[in-house]
Amino acid sequence: MNKVQLIQQYLQEKNIDAAFITTPDNVFYLSGFRSDPHERLLGIMIFKEAEPFMICPKMEVPDAKAAGWAFEAVGHEDTENAWEIFHHTTNTRNVPLHTLAIEKSHLTVERLEALQHFFNDTKYVGLDEQLNQMRLIKSEDELKKLREAAKLADYAIEVGCNEIAEGKTEIEILSAIEAAMKAKGVYMSFDTMVLTGLNAASPHGTPGTQKVQKGDLVLFDLGVVYEGYCSDITRTVAFGEISDAQKEVYETVKRANEAAIELVKPGVLAKELDHASRKVIEDAGFGEYFTHRLGHGLGISVHEFPSVHGANEMAMQEGMVFTIEPGIYKNDTAGVRIEDDVYVTESGVEVLTSFPKELQIIQPK
Amino acid sequence: MNKVQLIQQYLQEKNIDAAFITTPDNVFYLSGFRSDPHERLLGIMIFKEAEPFMICPKMEVPDAKAAGWAFEAVGHEDTENAWEIFHHTTNTRNVPLHTLAIEKSHLTVERLEALQHFFNDTKYVGLDEQLNQMRLIKSEDELKKLREAAKLADYAIEVGCNEIAEGKTEIEILSAIEAAMKAKGVYMSFDTMVLTGLNAASPHGTPGTQKVQKGDLVLFDLGVVYEGYCSDITRTVAFGEISDAQKEVYETVKRANEAAIELVKPGVLAKELDHASRKVIEDAGFGEYFTHRLGHGLGISVHEFPSVHGANEMAMQEGMVFTIEPGIYKNDTAGVRIEDDVYVTESGVEVLTSFPKELQIIQPK
Repeated sequence: MNKVQLIQQYLQEKNIDAAFITTPDNVFYLSGFRSDPHERLLGIMIFKEAEPFMICPKMEVPDAKAAGWAFEAVGHEDTENAWEIFHHTTNTRNVPLHTLAIEKSHLTVERLEALQHFFNDTKYVGLDEQLNQMRLIKSEDELKKLREAAKLADYAIEVGCNEIAEGKTEIEILSAIEAAMKAKGVYMSFDTMVLTGLNAASPHGTPGTQKVQKGDLVLFDLGVVYEGYCSDITRTVAFGEISDAQKEVYETVKRANEAAIELVKPGVLAKELDHASRKVIEDAGFGEYFTHRLGHGLGISVHEFPSVHGANEMAMQEGMVFTIEPGIYKNDTAGVRIEDDVYVTESGVEVLTSFPKELQIIQPK
Repeated sequence: MNKVQLIQQYLQEKNIDAAFITTPDNVFYLSGFRSDPHERLLGIMIFKEAEPFMICPKMEVPDAKAAGWAFEAVGHEDTENAWEIFHHTTNTRNVPLHTLAIEKSHLTVERLEALQHFFNDTKYVGLDEQLNQMRLIKSEDELKKLREAAKLADYAIEVGCNEIAEGKTEIEILSAIEAAMKAKGVYMSFDTMVLTGLNAASPHGTPGTQKVQKGDLVLFDLGVVYEGYCSDITRTVAFGEISDAQKEVYETVKRANEAAIELVKPGVLAKELDHASRKVIEDAGFGEYFTHRLGHGLGISVHEFPSVHGANEMAMQEGMVFTIEPGIYKNDTAGVRIEDDVYVTESGVEVLTSFPKELQIIQPK
């Protein structure tokens, strides 16, 4: 059963007349067609019992077809009212629309009002959870792409380490990484982060013209998109000798990362992973400096379902892929984060990212 | 009057109790604080007559303050219910919330439902148009940043032209451009596009491993962000001698670009600009190959208000900045687009981008 049929089955089970899917990531998930339509209307309408259609900017119709969308693709031009075209095409299916499922976590209020304008007797229900559930469990094919994305991320860290030298700026190093990845034909899944010294002690710091100096810890946070699937890795390495205080922070984060990974298997709760990792950091006296959740789901989106935090009661299942990324940001000592992408196997875990976690010391020349 | 006060004035005029602004671009516009909180709650609550506050991830509170947010900044952690904290903080202001303005074109249905859960007697109205209007007219300070962003985009095209050589791939050329820009400390405002030969005949084509060959037209579409403000330029250049048919396409697009720019001044309608440009292309017999609108507003967002298309009756005003970017995509001949960023002056136009538009022929070595 393909993904469109799975949605149809869901609509039949729940007695929902149709589903309108509008996020570019889910349009890609269902059709293989990747597009960023900006403010223009892009969506897939799937009926309980009628032929689905895609609505997209007219100039992208051939691309959608070429990407493998096997059903009708209706184009709209900038001068046209896309919602009228949507309404008209829906009417051609000649089915009632008592209930329509939408992506409530992404559809805007304005778009809901546009739908309500044309379908004002319709009840709107959320499809988000169902789509999240579908995307949660990765197929063998998806896993292959995620493995490859992780391998490329490992390579990107290697490139970054080779670029580290006294006086080089964060931006010079990250440019070299991004150029190397583009030469391999892949895009980054988010803006590459290279932070050196205490600049790394801000968990969402911005790379700039700060220069690497002996005794710095250098933090890399990056990922790539491989055939539509993302990786996300963080490694922190030393440039020359670092202090005992820096080492203590590093080793604590490493143990926190490992403590969570050891627990990963079907049935473990998301919050148990967060707690295990956080306990290591708290026990070492750094609790107040670990200021974010443990991790997040990973797939077509670089941040997707589930959120791995201390209040999430969700049990992990075979086929899930998520990050484990504890960090300590102590602005008088060091900023360290170590992040892996993990896949839940039948009985345990496969860690997709494999760049070494033993403290790497880059020797100044 | 600062921007927060302007919103307060608007709320007083319209008798709206408060406004909740949640798009990262508008949070930046109002506070100077640039953040991408992913799915986490980030917003600015401005009351008609009480102290505003920002709600953001806890770890970003110091960054928001450092960026210049002068009012209360309330943090939330991943384990907390951010909406409860929002509700609580709002209540401390002790003002009724009969009417709340939201960004309907960005706020999700899920977030509206979260608001409705806590404020269920409140009427929700749109703030989008007011924010669009405020951002539409650029201040002298904003114009300075846009000029600088455009200058950097010109430079990026120059870098790209210098990189063109027989057998180089699109990705190699765009990597060199992006590295050069990062070395200058600026990020691209969107994924750089370098398309060669007939690959450029798709208006939303993707750069890949296609190699530049003699007789190709090479299309660059790129932009940078300078201190929060975007540029967006497209140039198409020839590598070696091109055919008369290619030249005809190029010269038609150039005339179409110039025809619109000539008309720019306060009072001209958006649709008149589109029509003028489109008429040149239609008269040359290429009408069916110009498949998109003429342009879009430019500022903090690379695509912002207004949309410059053939059905937009809006009159242009002094202080507006937008793109003019006609194109012809004829998949047996050539893909050409020429895009400039323009500023509406008191009596005419200032073209911010200045890379030459006379056909540039890069000579093969």
